[in-house]
Amino acid sequence: MVTEEKMKNALQSYLDGFNETDAELIISLFADDAKLEDPVGGGKIVEGIEAISEFYRGGVNMVEKLELNTPIRGSHGNSAAMAFTIYMEMGGKKTQIQAIDVMTFNDEGKIIDMKAYHGPSNVTTE
Amino acid sequence: MVTEEKMKNALQSYLDGFNETDAELIISLFADDAKLEDPVGGGKIVEGIEAISEFYRGGVNMVEKLELNTPIRGSHGNSAAMAFTIYMEMGGKKTQIQAIDVMTFNDEGKIIDMKAYHGPSNVTTE
Repeated sequence: MVTEEKMKNALQSYLDGFNETDAELIISLFADDAKLEDPVGGGKIVEGIEAISEFYRGGVNMVEKLELNTPIRGSHGNSAAMAFTIYMEMGGKKTQIQAIDVMTFNDEGKIIDMKAYHGPSNVTTE
Repeated sequence: MVTEEKMKNALQSYLDGFNETDAELIISLFADDAKLEDPVGGGKIVEGIEAISEFYRGGVNMVEKLELNTPIRGSHGNSAAMAFTIYMEMGGKKTQIQAIDVMTFNDEGKIIDMKAYHGPSNVTTE
């Protein structure tokens, strides 16, 4: 089973990938058969490493930075979670989105599932 | 469908229930057929309102306070999430546990599923 330390390192690398505009670092954290839902309830599941790669290659260029709000949480199982703020521009306006991401890992320590919790009330525009 | 505002209010009431030692307030947030896993990977699922009631009637007396770390997250669906710190005594020592809880709601606005993410690395003892 994946260790708590390995999961927490992966979540930190996820943040680093956005902050260093390094989509390949983020993509390397995912299993080939992974899926993600971002945002949860948004009606779109991104499935498989090709679609996930496209998602993050676009995503890193939209995001200015991700800032962790409080230390990353592990678990006694194969999941970890973190609360952070996304800084980005939308429609020419500086926008902040407060999110919580939950990542589930396979035995090889790769992410097989990611869910991003943020709703309209978590978006602020300057 | 449950609104984001209603879900966020429920999560605030969950914190209030612990902070006011009011287990009945917490229990009232759950559906009869709800289940919870706290902590995730701990090997125990608490199922049904009777078991859940017992869980929280014991729980509120073990906890000194819950402190929100960053604003509650909603979603575009029927889930919400929050990051907080649990202050409690364990074995006579002041202990803090950093957790992220994810709650899923039914159409009536009651919690049907709760998952609490925290691992050994999220526990500090003074």
